[in-house]
Amino acid sequence: MKALVYHGPGQKSWDDVPDSRIVDDTDAIIGVDATTICGTDLHILKGDLPDITSGRILGHEAVGTVEAVGSAVTTVKPGDRVVVSCISACGRCRYCREAGYGQCLGGGGWILGHKIDGTQADFARVPFADTSTYLIPAGLDDEAVLMLSDILPTGYEVGVVNGGIRAGDTVVIVGAGPIGLSAIMSARLYSPSHIIAIDLADTRLEAAKQFGADVTVNPARQDPAQIIAGLTEGLGADVVIEAVGLSDTFEMCTRLVRPGGHVANVGVHGGPATLHLEDLWTRNVTITTGLVDTWSTPTLLKLLRTGQLAPQKFITHRFALEQVVDAYEVFSRAGDTGALKVLLHK
Amino acid sequence: MKALVYHGPGQKSWDDVPDSRIVDDTDAIIGVDATTICGTDLHILKGDLPDITSGRILGHEAVGTVEAVGSAVTTVKPGDRVVVSCISACGRCRYCREAGYGQCLGGGGWILGHKIDGTQADFARVPFADTSTYLIPAGLDDEAVLMLSDILPTGYEVGVVNGGIRAGDTVVIVGAGPIGLSAIMSARLYSPSHIIAIDLADTRLEAAKQFGADVTVNPARQDPAQIIAGLTEGLGADVVIEAVGLSDTFEMCTRLVRPGGHVANVGVHGGPATLHLEDLWTRNVTITTGLVDTWSTPTLLKLLRTGQLAPQKFITHRFALEQVVDAYEVFSRAGDTGALKVLLHK
Repeated sequence: MKALVYHGPGQKSWDDVPDSRIVDDTDAIIGVDATTICGTDLHILKGDLPDITSGRILGHEAVGTVEAVGSAVTTVKPGDRVVVSCISACGRCRYCREAGYGQCLGGGGWILGHKIDGTQADFARVPFADTSTYLIPAGLDDEAVLMLSDILPTGYEVGVVNGGIRAGDTVVIVGAGPIGLSAIMSARLYSPSHIIAIDLADTRLEAAKQFGADVTVNPARQDPAQIIAGLTEGLGADVVIEAVGLSDTFEMCTRLVRPGGHVANVGVHGGPATLHLEDLWTRNVTITTGLVDTWSTPTLLKLLRTGQLAPQKFITHRFALEQVVDAYEVFSRAGDTGALKVLLHK
Repeated sequence: MKALVYHGPGQKSWDDVPDSRIVDDTDAIIGVDATTICGTDLHILKGDLPDITSGRILGHEAVGTVEAVGSAVTTVKPGDRVVVSCISACGRCRYCREAGYGQCLGGGGWILGHKIDGTQADFARVPFADTSTYLIPAGLDDEAVLMLSDILPTGYEVGVVNGGIRAGDTVVIVGAGPIGLSAIMSARLYSPSHIIAIDLADTRLEAAKQFGADVTVNPARQDPAQIIAGLTEGLGADVVIEAVGLSDTFEMCTRLVRPGGHVANVGVHGGPATLHLEDLWTRNVTITTGLVDTWSTPTLLKLLRTGQLAPQKFITHRFALEQVVDAYEVFSRAGDTGALKVLLHK
């Protein structure tokens, strides 16, 4: 079979590799019908995640068809159409029992395209298939469901749910890349009064409006604090979601939140931030961090069926799987190409 | 009347001052039967809270007898025995309506001994008396109830409730001063499996045992992370409460907490801390900060009546009110004197 193989920082190629095969009796082999590229894949190629070894097949998102299952798998069978979650879950450990699958202690967590081979390939081995894949209801197309592998549950669980958005809230999303847009899209489920998107790129602010932001702020031209104060009687935002992953943007979030408000960090951080406890200690602020657990996948599938979420609009570019190297090029130059998510299809 | 007056950093004296009098029709004048000194008062004397002006009467804790009330006060009347909350609440603003009295926008919040004259005096003017004092049920003594002005609700609300302690949790309290002890005492209400107190002073660790800690750690001799790992299958603590107010101790808290755990900051901070988002972004950690709101006072009064809490054990020293300067001396040398809370009585 063919797969996109990581060969160390900056190096990747579409290679012939040995066929995926069942290793454990809880595995499934999935024929990849559609996959995509995540910002995290670019972090890997930059060398930001040094525990990823050369030779690893990249990718942790897929919609596919079950090709084979191990003897212990009971929920899916060959021929079934499934979404592969970016998080694998043993289903047995303390964290899995509490729906904290991202912290799985039984060999799961974020392992695909990280600790084991991933999904940017003709086939992928998915461990713990019963608790790491979801059957796709009839009538849902690949392009929508693929967004449930990672981006939509990440924005929803780590941004919107952790942030505790309630009806009438003023919500700020710092960073209007794909993850920020996912948070904007799913924040609307809770009927906030305002969704304010902050980004330095006007193209992204334009996308934020398409995804549901009613106010956009480019901090190169406007002071976000002033605009938010004007919308909140000077108090600040009820919920601020960090979707960039830089110390400056995180610190901005802690300045924009009102006393009693929430800061939900979704961004992938490579370094520390300064936490201004000398101001924050009296302000009753709640700060959350988190890797996605994907506990929300069944709910998100339902919202796709009812049309309350339509995440296929993330897909701006389409390629055949064997064009994956070209797709990385387009995705990594998102500022120029306007790419949000690039679809790679069979 | 007499009162302890702040005369700038390091300066205070027991002075003759004009009698307290009703200013607003929602005020009450309280004859102070008992008051005490808070660590925050020492911060004020150090000059750490520069917005406090010379001439201010210090103190924000009291049990007393209502002497007079303004025309709008309906809940308390002259002769009633009340606890004065350290937080005054207008009862009208957005925050008060949500029980966030510490953030009161209507002129309340922490104002006693801060923005207006306080309780280390023969009498004190208490604004918004209907929503800032609580009638004391018969049978409760001053020494227990006085701890409900500040220290017990602070440890309980900002530490225990914000930390979300649940039965069976492993709870770590960093700092076993009065606030840490208050958190230890009230943490027991939620039946954690372990309460681990960490402090550099062995006398404080001994007190922590008296207040309910089952494990004590002096980091000068033992590695807290190793001890906590041994009690938690290597995961870390479910809830870590910061009760010191230093960047180092805050950062220790973020290292001791397990993935999915909570860090509740109670300490008063004078500077920033480093937040290691490069580690924390994947760990589903919740961090809270907060000034006490005192929404829990009615519940705490009930727990005093049933004997489930017995906070009179905080009081290690007793003085007449006019000996307040001596009492400060004993309280500020707590390391030598073993003082936890010093009672000043009429």
